[in-house]
Amino acid sequence: MSVMYKKILYPTDFSETAEIALKHVKAFKTLKAEEVILLHVIDEREIKKRDIFSLLLGVAGLNKSVEEFENELKNKLTEEAKNKMENIKKELEDVGFKVKDIIVVGIPHEEIVKIAEDEGVDIIIMGSHGKTNLKEILLGSVTENVIKKSNKPVLVVKRKNS
Amino acid sequence: MSVMYKKILYPTDFSETAEIALKHVKAFKTLKAEEVILLHVIDEREIKKRDIFSLLLGVAGLNKSVEEFENELKNKLTEEAKNKMENIKKELEDVGFKVKDIIVVGIPHEEIVKIAEDEGVDIIIMGSHGKTNLKEILLGSVTENVIKKSNKPVLVVKRKNS
Repeated sequence: MSVMYKKILYPTDFSETAEIALKHVKAFKTLKAEEVILLHVIDEREIKKRDIFSLLLGVAGLNKSVEEFENELKNKLTEEAKNKMENIKKELEDVGFKVKDIIVVGIPHEEIVKIAEDEGVDIIIMGSHGKTNLKEILLGSVTENVIKKSNKPVLVVKRKNS
Repeated sequence: MSVMYKKILYPTDFSETAEIALKHVKAFKTLKAEEVILLHVIDEREIKKRDIFSLLLGVAGLNKSVEEFENELKNKLTEEAKNKMENIKKELEDVGFKVKDIIVVGIPHEEIVKIAEDEGVDIIIMGSHGKTNLKEILLGSVTENVIKKSNKPVLVVKRKNS
């Protein structure tokens, strides 16, 4: 049974390494790949920081509940992500891919593994590191967890001068 | 600058997962990939077991030095590897690849990272686990080390029902 890469999952955190990985996604077009699931996961742990937020709200003297503040933050992050996703979606459509863009709030590696399964992708193409990874980290935890927990092939694209 | 996968490094330990990874190597033929570096590393730690060997030789009453025994073992492992490599080489040549087969003795992930660099490959395609990895290990140490220490993109192919 020969291998075909028809459907690709490309999770991005809009980092520099994710941009390098995007070039690899495009290269798969010649491999008769047809569709890209373009995914961005807003890390819920970035939003759910109740203790800090309530402190902040108090200091700023803002008459807002923590829930309201969290919701506003989530909407703002979602809005920002949408704009970035539009550009990437266009880039991929320009090389002939059908693109389905998804933005979810959750734990990044868990959402990536779940959506790869739900969408029945043939391969995951992602950067080895994300935005938050320190220089000395040799493999970002999101990518390491995806490799360990998904049964899909994962093309790990390294960051520049790694 | 667009990405091309002209030269592939395919390290194999002849395990079941390595066989699945071979299918992915073949899939890259349609991506205008031209050459495969087919690599097998005989793990020197398998050969250099002086204490056990000298014990064994003593028990078996064989009049052989440990060096002689190690050499014979190395030659035997190399011979076995050659036969297996011949079949894989033919399989890859049949789908149109130019194949360079290499057998070395050393520490697997170190040799893989080094040869990927020396040969200037565009991608490494390998199994997530090797022969010796236990079921509960989620990512084999050889593959994990290659991902961490090489700057090449690595396509990690998962083992069956992982």
